[in-house]
Amino acid sequence: MSAFSEQDYQFMQRALDLAAKGAYTTSPNPAVGCVLVKNGEIVGEGFHFKAGQLHAERVALAQAGEQAKGATAYVTLEPCSHYGRTPPCALGLIEAGVVKVIAAMQDPNPQVAGKGLKMLNEAGIKSAVNLLNDSAESLNKGFLKRMRQNLPFVQLKLAMSLDGRTAMASGESKWITGGAARSDVQKMRAKSSALLSTSATVLADNPSLNVRWEELPDEVKQDYVKESVRQPVRVILDSQHRIQPSHKLFETASPVWLVANEARDLSAFPAFCEQIILPKQNLLSELMLELGKRQINTLWVEAGANLAGSLIEQKLVDELIIYVAPKLLGDQARGLCQLPHLTQLADAPLWQLNEFQQIGDDIKLTYTPKGS
Amino acid sequence: MSAFSEQDYQFMQRALDLAAKGAYTTSPNPAVGCVLVKNGEIVGEGFHFKAGQLHAERVALAQAGEQAKGATAYVTLEPCSHYGRTPPCALGLIEAGVVKVIAAMQDPNPQVAGKGLKMLNEAGIKSAVNLLNDSAESLNKGFLKRMRQNLPFVQLKLAMSLDGRTAMASGESKWITGGAARSDVQKMRAKSSALLSTSATVLADNPSLNVRWEELPDEVKQDYVKESVRQPVRVILDSQHRIQPSHKLFETASPVWLVANEARDLSAFPAFCEQIILPKQNLLSELMLELGKRQINTLWVEAGANLAGSLIEQKLVDELIIYVAPKLLGDQARGLCQLPHLTQLADAPLWQLNEFQQIGDDIKLTYTPKGS
Repeated sequence: MSAFSEQDYQFMQRALDLAAKGAYTTSPNPAVGCVLVKNGEIVGEGFHFKAGQLHAERVALAQAGEQAKGATAYVTLEPCSHYGRTPPCALGLIEAGVVKVIAAMQDPNPQVAGKGLKMLNEAGIKSAVNLLNDSAESLNKGFLKRMRQNLPFVQLKLAMSLDGRTAMASGESKWITGGAARSDVQKMRAKSSALLSTSATVLADNPSLNVRWEELPDEVKQDYVKESVRQPVRVILDSQHRIQPSHKLFETASPVWLVANEARDLSAFPAFCEQIILPKQNLLSELMLELGKRQINTLWVEAGANLAGSLIEQKLVDELIIYVAPKLLGDQARGLCQLPHLTQLADAPLWQLNEFQQIGDDIKLTYTPKGS
Repeated sequence: MSAFSEQDYQFMQRALDLAAKGAYTTSPNPAVGCVLVKNGEIVGEGFHFKAGQLHAERVALAQAGEQAKGATAYVTLEPCSHYGRTPPCALGLIEAGVVKVIAAMQDPNPQVAGKGLKMLNEAGIKSAVNLLNDSAESLNKGFLKRMRQNLPFVQLKLAMSLDGRTAMASGESKWITGGAARSDVQKMRAKSSALLSTSATVLADNPSLNVRWEELPDEVKQDYVKESVRQPVRVILDSQHRIQPSHKLFETASPVWLVANEARDLSAFPAFCEQIILPKQNLLSELMLELGKRQINTLWVEAGANLAGSLIEQKLVDELIIYVAPKLLGDQARGLCQLPHLTQLADAPLWQLNEFQQIGDDIKLTYTPKGS
């Protein structure tokens, strides 16, 4: 592994910043950025915007034109080596006369996995890997988990009072957190491939479970125009077939997948509504496998104490994201998660704080399972 | 108000750092630091260590000796003007020939309250006030509240899981938080004039409710030797006279005040055990008045959901300090606070985050009542 210069870090950071602009739109593809540098100056740069459109390297090469000859490419993910919807980017870099390629990380996609770098090396192009690797990993947590394990990256969202309550005894829960936290939730939804909820939540609140561009934080709107908004697939656990075509879910014309154990007649539902039929046993882990097959990178879960508890007990949560409002609701109010099998403190699921953020009057805590 | 120079800030910061060394020992007096500067150099400095011993100004003057003549004094609190256990510090500064005094803040003590500065001015010494005022305020929250309102500064400590639970359904609660958080609690106890708990807590866990020097964080031990350890007064709500001389409380020979509505025979108890007899009605607010009279600056509350809820409902909490462990205990586990009168979300008590700290695997959140 070669040592990297300060300039290398700067250009890769620029490539990462570019890649992040695709975070709302590239699913099921990864977000990727590329910067082409010649004589210490950027001669081309770009990011992947959307599946089916140009990859980051191709955008940067197009911008650089003849200037690409002799340039160094900084890419946030190993250039692809396979013919997908577009020809391999490694080939594009070779043809353009790039002399060196630095990738933030290898692509775990089995179709790539080192082959891109190999293709470059065989063409006499120098390459290096693992520069700002952690940032590159965290940019594509969903894509990377799916490539490595054929499973989506599961983010369980919870919103609670300081004393861990999600609603008054009456069920009243509008609103525990403030507007800024709810806007952050819109951002997290927008970044997700799919959103998981339950018919219990739909019946209780009749939510749209969509992305409302107007409610996104201002800094997101700068990079993400209204016309590009991609709705996450709404995945609803509905074993009792309680979801009806009249529910607000269906006012947003984007996929709804109803999960049940038995098929039902969907003729009264819009065409974008499908069923996923799974056996009762191990339903949640079976669902994750199915969602992996369906190319869901990140799954954002918004649900009640019951589903939250089940996902936690079954160790299906990759990230716990808790919005904490500075309020106390008291012992009568509703709790955060049901863990009926837990009786001993020593068996309590353990987590590790990864991020702390103040959002308006609330705080956002991001935890990952300890030891994972 | 004169403008302050960068040097002024530096010297006052030094005085504040010195003052903080007294934070464990000065109660009921305030923590105060003093730096004497001549020709840009420190010629004497000191802090107040303990009631009855030299005030900060006197320590600094003793160190400076003849050098004090023509010096500027930086003091974290207005120099006193009254004859207490020691003669007025303002007089000491005048006699030593100090030419200028800068105080971080005025002393709200009605015996001082501007009179110290006035005494200096009348002697022809220049003075200025309100430099790093916020830091000076936060150093003596307890003393200042007592001077202004005749009440102690009440810090309610809670330790909970991520989902707001303090114990398993069985009552098992050792330990929810980690060793570093428990060590921080020792530090907070050490800084407090008194600790408030209940006979319910004593009967359940038989705690010592004392400061154990060995368990203090290492950085505290550097400034605070074992021989100086001052135990907070243990104030125990015990309306049913359930506390017995055999309880561990009494193994630490420092005051225990038992709060009840009726007197009981204390002949079997150690001499350091006293009673506070109060009417049932408004017991908690009456207790605060009584503790103010007894010169309790800071009251550190360690108790269960019942007392926590009552203090919150009666708006008697100045600071809510929550240690959050990265664990989930589930809905069956015990809740944080009882707020039986709260039924509407809009009536939930509101707080404001003042401080976030990671302590070992846990986090520490410090909130103050919103709007206070």
